[in-house]
Amino acid sequence: MNWNVYLSGEIHTAWRQQIVEACQQAQLPVEFTSAVTDHQASDAAGDVLGEQDQAYWRDHQSAKVNALRTRTLIQNCDVAVIRFGDKYKQWNAAFDAGYCAALGKPYITLHSADLTHPLKEVDAAAMAWAQSPEQVVEVLIYTTRR
Amino acid sequence: MNWNVYLSGEIHTAWRQQIVEACQQAQLPVEFTSAVTDHQASDAAGDVLGEQDQAYWRDHQSAKVNALRTRTLIQNCDVAVIRFGDKYKQWNAAFDAGYCAALGKPYITLHSADLTHPLKEVDAAAMAWAQSPEQVVEVLIYTTRR
Amino acid sequence: MNWNVYLSGEIHTAWRQQIVEACQQAQLPVEFTSAVTDHQASDAAGDVLGEQDQAYWRDHQSAKVNALRTRTLIQNCDVAVIRFGDKYKQWNAAFDAGYCAALGKPYITLHSADLTHPLKEVDAAAMAWAQSPEQVVEVLIYTTRR
Amino acid sequence: MNWNVYLSGEIHTAWRQQIVEACQQAQLPVEFTSAVTDHQASDAAGDVLGEQDQAYWRDHQSAKVNALRTRTLIQNCDVAVIRFGDKYKQWNAAFDAGYCAALGKPYITLHSADLTHPLKEVDAAAMAWAQSPEQVVEVLIYTTRR
Amino acid sequence: MNWNVYLSGEIHTAWRQQIVEACQQAQLPVEFTSAVTDHQASDAAGDVLGEQDQAYWRDHQSAKVNALRTRTLIQNCDVAVIRFGDKYKQWNAAFDAGYCAALGKPYITLHSADLTHPLKEVDAAAMAWAQSPEQVVEVLIYTTRR
Amino acid sequence: MNWNVYLSGEIHTAWRQQIVEACQQAQLPVEFTSAVTDHQASDAAGDVLGEQDQAYWRDHQSAKVNALRTRTLIQNCDVAVIRFGDKYKQWNAAFDAGYCAALGKPYITLHSADLTHPLKEVDAAAMAWAQSPEQVVEVLIYTTRR
Amino acid sequence: MNWNVYLSGEIHTAWRQQIVEACQQAQLPVEFTSAVTDHQASDAAGDVLGEQDQAYWRDHQSAKVNALRTRTLIQNCDVAVIRFGDKYKQWNAAFDAGYCAALGKPYITLHSADLTHPLKEVDAAAMAWAQSPEQVVEVLIYTTRR
Amino acid sequence: MNWNVYLSGEIHTAWRQQIVEACQQAQLPVEFTSAVTDHQASDAAGDVLGEQDQAYWRDHQSAKVNALRTRTLIQNCDVAVIRFGDKYKQWNAAFDAGYCAALGKPYITLHSADLTHPLKEVDAAAMAWAQSPEQVVEVLIYTTRR
Repeated sequence: MNWNVYLSGEIHTAWRQQIVEACQQAQLPVEFTSAVTDHQASDAAGDVLGEQDQAYWRDHQSAKVNALRTRTLIQNCDVAVIRFGDKYKQWNAAFDAGYCAALGKPYITLHSADLTHPLKEVDAAAMAWAQSPEQVVEVLIYTTRR
Repeated sequence: MNWNVYLSGEIHTAWRQQIVEACQQAQLPVEFTSAVTDHQASDAAGDVLGEQDQAYWRDHQSAKVNALRTRTLIQNCDVAVIRFGDKYKQWNAAFDAGYCAALGKPYITLHSADLTHPLKEVDAAAMAWAQSPEQVVEVLIYTTRR
Repeated sequence: MNWNVYLSGEIHTAWRQQIVEACQQAQLPVEFTSAVTDHQASDAAGDVLGEQDQAYWRDHQSAKVNALRTRTLIQNCDVAVIRFGDKYKQWNAAFDAGYCAALGKPYITLHSADLTHPLKEVDAAAMAWAQSPEQVVEVLIYTTRR
Repeated sequence: MNWNVYLSGEIHTAWRQQIVEACQQAQLPVEFTSAVTDHQASDAAGDVLGEQDQAYWRDHQSAKVNALRTRTLIQNCDVAVIRFGDKYKQWNAAFDAGYCAALGKPYITLHSADLTHPLKEVDAAAMAWAQSPEQVVEVLIYTTRR
Repeated sequence: MNWNVYLSGEIHTAWRQQIVEACQQAQLPVEFTSAVTDHQASDAAGDVLGEQDQAYWRDHQSAKVNALRTRTLIQNCDVAVIRFGDKYKQWNAAFDAGYCAALGKPYITLHSADLTHPLKEVDAAAMAWAQSPEQVVEVLIYTTRR
Repeated sequence: MNWNVYLSGEIHTAWRQQIVEACQQAQLPVEFTSAVTDHQASDAAGDVLGEQDQAYWRDHQSAKVNALRTRTLIQNCDVAVIRFGDKYKQWNAAFDAGYCAALGKPYITLHSADLTHPLKEVDAAAMAWAQSPEQVVEVLIYTTRR
Repeated sequence: MNWNVYLSGEIHTAWRQQIVEACQQAQLPVEFTSAVTDHQASDAAGDVLGEQDQAYWRDHQSAKVNALRTRTLIQNCDVAVIRFGDKYKQWNAAFDAGYCAALGKPYITLHSADLTHPLKEVDAAAMAWAQSPEQVVEVLIYTTRR
Repeated sequence: MNWNVYLSGEIHTAWRQQIVEACQQAQLPVEFTSAVTDHQASDAAGDVLGEQDQAYWRDHQSAKVNALRTRTLIQNCDVAVIRFGDKYKQWNAAFDAGYCAALGKPYITLHSADLTHPLKEVDAAAMAWAQSPEQVVEVLIYTTRR
């Protein structure tokens, strides 16, 4: 079986790349997917459909275009990894966690120890809480071994 | 038809009470439910099952006990209102939004205008964004009229 | 058993009232629900959330507020009646029919004989095609008899 | 991941071909499917099962045979594009939109600006409204990028 | 809890009445539902929508009107009893059994011993095979006891 | 797209082979599946698990082993063809039809004109009624054309 | 909201009664349901349908009759409590836990500390592990408070 | 069609290997999956995420990591084989059986005759009870034959 792993959340550090590369080196039967992680491209995702005067509707239009991609990828994944960084609200990551939970998609959270209290509901519905990409890789090696 | 409305999110202002009272005055056919909104009681929800040395497991145990209640209430609601305040991470509110979205439960967000950018994914999946409890009440009056 | 019947579609003639009254007279165990059928109120459903310069976004905002109501009512109904009149596009009625079909909610269409060709897909997924409210009432009497 | 995109609606202009060719040129990982778009063949789809005297039953028989194909293709798609042209009722396109919405299949609408008011419910449930095939292609390029 | 029991199948003997009366006497918390069991009325269920020249389409129209009732009742039941008599094809009873099986609705079959071989697939998916209405009543008394 | 077509029902004539061969000749992108059609092997399917004294339990054991296969194949099919012959009760075929209907799997019935009345419920839920394997092949050619 | 709580598992101690009485005293809005807990009656549940020579088929017949009740009650519950005692295999309790987990029904386990290792998979999918009926009552008071 | 068979339960005898090898020799179109069957590795599955002082939380953490794998594999399987040995509680095997039953995944149990009474609920929901790996192989040969 090939595993489809969705990588959700923070886009300002190299955690995705670290996980993907380590899993490739370990030759895991895993395909990774993700939202578009280029911040500016993501904010502008809907601009091609018409420029908006109001920031709210520009955001709305772009968020929906992004959802075309992310909903499909989450619905098709076997497992998700959901990363929370130190900055920003990152409500989209928590939204993805709730979406996975309701669909019965098991997920791993990835965040530092100082976020455990505000993330307690998100972690309680997770199958694992990792503090480093290396731990996620270890869990994926274990999970996908033949 | 009687409507079941779940009120999710911020617990430090009186928005729930304002909505409930205004809907009662308007004699709407609505029953409201909510997580336990007493912060300390919520953090201690699992303590009766055994005290934990580690903050992480105390949180875990309590978050799961709270989920007994909140999962059931969300699965039984017709509509949710999800409130984001000015402080704290409030990832549980975004988690509830994602959970509702995946179940096809329509929801209204309630937050001030300066949060629209970080909430764009949550708002894009919502049926309405309100900035005040009064607006939520207006929407509920419209939605539930006979 | 009490039956919940959703009345969808055309809002310019008295077909809803005719069906409701005839069923009440026949003392059927039926509760009827419907979208808000006041055209102006429906178009303005979202205005309370903020006035929009762009007609598209005003429509969008109002259509979503209306969906709060209609999605819930359709998901809770046992049977739908979907009416197509002689004028206007009435795409929302066809949308409701598709929505019902995907959920496995049985529905009756109500339209004149000259619309059968363009409605063939909608009728093919229906359980009955009626040409008059009286026929709908007859079908409901038969369907809900104890 | 390979994406499966269902193209629904208007059959009198070359919009399908434009989208398919542009996506092939861009080497997108997309497979397109569609109802049978030959109008006469579609109307006659059921004739092989027996000729019908009544136009209604001929339409019924053919519409059901077409549904064999379209239901399966929609249930298997990841994303749909739903096109409304300037003529005809096109209720089958709106039906497909409602069907997608109920299944949680994200879709893009494609229509000119003068149809936004009658399509407001259909657009409100869509992830994007495009006015040209080029815009659809841009959205698909964004959505499916690796 | 009140139980909703759907009685499907053979309409030429008094088995429904026997079960209903015995359960009423035993004061079970059970509500019974059923297709319309008047054979002529059932065959003519669709006639109000227009008389058909072709027997096939008359049957088709009536069968769909009956399905308005039966689909809803089956989807709402907790348990079904499916009766096969000695005569006729009774394919609708077997159809109902398959429908229940796919929905996860537990059902009891009621038929004489000489039908066990042709009904083996239907019985294998059942929770009980009874040979008499009395046995069905005994099983319902056991099943619904408080 | 490759289509998966499940062939259910009567096992005493060569209708399966006729359909499969004609579809192969037409090079349709179709894979066919079926229950085990060797009557004796099917009746004995469970004997390997232990011989049973009672005919009822032998049938039960074998029917469940056959269900291992048929449930899986039906759940994985895109379209079913359900054949009723002139002899026997064939309740398993009607059971499969009900099972498909509840899962939303579109199906074609195949039977002669003298069976239309007792099969009216099964036909009403079908997408097509064919009287010959050739008609089924025509419908499959139409349905699966690229 | 009234809560429906299913009590599954061990039948040799008075834990059900203790929970029910304490919840009644606390006037919780809870209705409790349960399998038939009379061991002999449960083993004989199917005997009314015919005596069986083989112990295996007697068990099979009775287990299916019991499933008529338990499947329905579990599907209708909001929350389950699943009790493991010190004796016997109690595989039916673990089966119920897996059934609840797959349906997304939140459950509480109730067992002594020396069973935590063999129950680790069952506990991991639970929302709470209680060691005494009093703890279960405390959790239910918290969960159902208005 | 290729079949995906999940092998659940007892890990102290060579039953998995016997089934896999016999099926390979018979060239069945079957892929087998399983939980990690190395007992120590399984108990330690979560240790990489942080060592736990309390046995309960170590078990909890490991059981959740194992669930990442097993939930996904069960959700993706066509058929499961669930083995109960002579020793230990094996509640996870019964949990898997309940999980399969709720998802509608057909399964085969594999256990000796002296376990039939305590396993009656698990067997009643199974499609076959086998006493030896050879019988399982025979059933799989029959089930997957082309």
